[in-house]
Amino acid sequence: MSNPLIITIGREYGSGGHQIGEIVAKKLGIAFYDKQIISLAAQKSGLSDEFIANNEQRVKSGLMQNLATSAAYSSGFFSSQYLPLSESIFISQAQVIRDIAAKESAVIVGRCADYILAGRQNTINVFIHAPKEARVQRIMALYHLDEAAALKAIATSDKERGNHYFRYTDLKWGKAQNYDISINSALMGVEKTAEMLVSLAKIEERA
Amino acid sequence: MSNPLIITIGREYGSGGHQIGEIVAKKLGIAFYDKQIISLAAQKSGLSDEFIANNEQRVKSGLMQNLATSAAYSSGFFSSQYLPLSESIFISQAQVIRDIAAKESAVIVGRCADYILAGRQNTINVFIHAPKEARVQRIMALYHLDEAAALKAIATSDKERGNHYFRYTDLKWGKAQNYDISINSALMGVEKTAEMLVSLAKIEERA
Repeated sequence: MSNPLIITIGREYGSGGHQIGEIVAKKLGIAFYDKQIISLAAQKSGLSDEFIANNEQRVKSGLMQNLATSAAYSSGFFSSQYLPLSESIFISQAQVIRDIAAKESAVIVGRCADYILAGRQNTINVFIHAPKEARVQRIMALYHLDEAAALKAIATSDKERGNHYFRYTDLKWGKAQNYDISINSALMGVEKTAEMLVSLAKIEERA
Repeated sequence: MSNPLIITIGREYGSGGHQIGEIVAKKLGIAFYDKQIISLAAQKSGLSDEFIANNEQRVKSGLMQNLATSAAYSSGFFSSQYLPLSESIFISQAQVIRDIAAKESAVIVGRCADYILAGRQNTINVFIHAPKEARVQRIMALYHLDEAAALKAIATSDKERGNHYFRYTDLKWGKAQNYDISINSALMGVEKTAEMLVSLAKIEERA
């Protein structure tokens, strides 16, 4: 069997990226992991001292490049107590994502999965976005918010996601060149966008 | 008849965006305009004094927002002799692009066409990119260059295109959110990428 197919999805808040990911996973008959599931799995697995020691210097070297691309690098020089909690969490989530990618085909939404799996074969990195007006409408309907609250939620979330992505990857969130495909979900709507990604995944699997 | 379909294509040098545009236009049976054709048409049409007078202040207001989105704004306050040549050329090319979009369905490559037609219905804005290695290979084969020359050509062109785009639009070239769809052409190759865009255009036309 070849390398499992992994589709990572980065998305703007309110763009429908999460729902698109669910539909794609269902249509392809593969697993679906979102931010919550990965966070829970990382919490459950915990962080062994050995694991932290092996990853620590990669965090300290900044940008997590070694962490994301190599499992071979190891260093036990620093004690794990110096590792900030947010970095520990990132490392643990990255490990969960790599474990998933090693064992089964899946759609993975969020958590810098594109970066963590950089260089991996049979991986399609997707970014879903939409014009602000479309996102406001979606958020208002989904969470029964008024327009002002929806706009505020969008601004806050975009900022958080951009910061989180940049902090751990040193790359710009939403830069087209960082993804294989970026789509405005408002162009065709959630269902048709998902269908297009399914077609693309099928072409890619045959290649 | 509904508004003609316009597909604009921005592209990284060596990504195959020009060729993809040609294939898409042929498969859809619509016109194809690239940078050269638009430049020639703009030169041929020239710039009437009246046209310049009507567009001048839009240039001076920066960012060309009025120019790109409205044909109604007019001002004869400044004399055309104060308009820098590069701005005159941009205005003239923008007019050529708007004329095309008013009369026929077409693929338009380059020249900030996405920005010039911003807000237009039945327009799909595409950005084609590819990893540097893939672009180097393509440029070497196409122009019989060695690797160093190909790398240099790519760096120069990316910088020029980014600067040109930013100068006239105040937007970041290659930012996913500025396009409806951005694709890494190396994922599926030039032919399949073009096919995917054709499918997308057909879905969009039915919508």
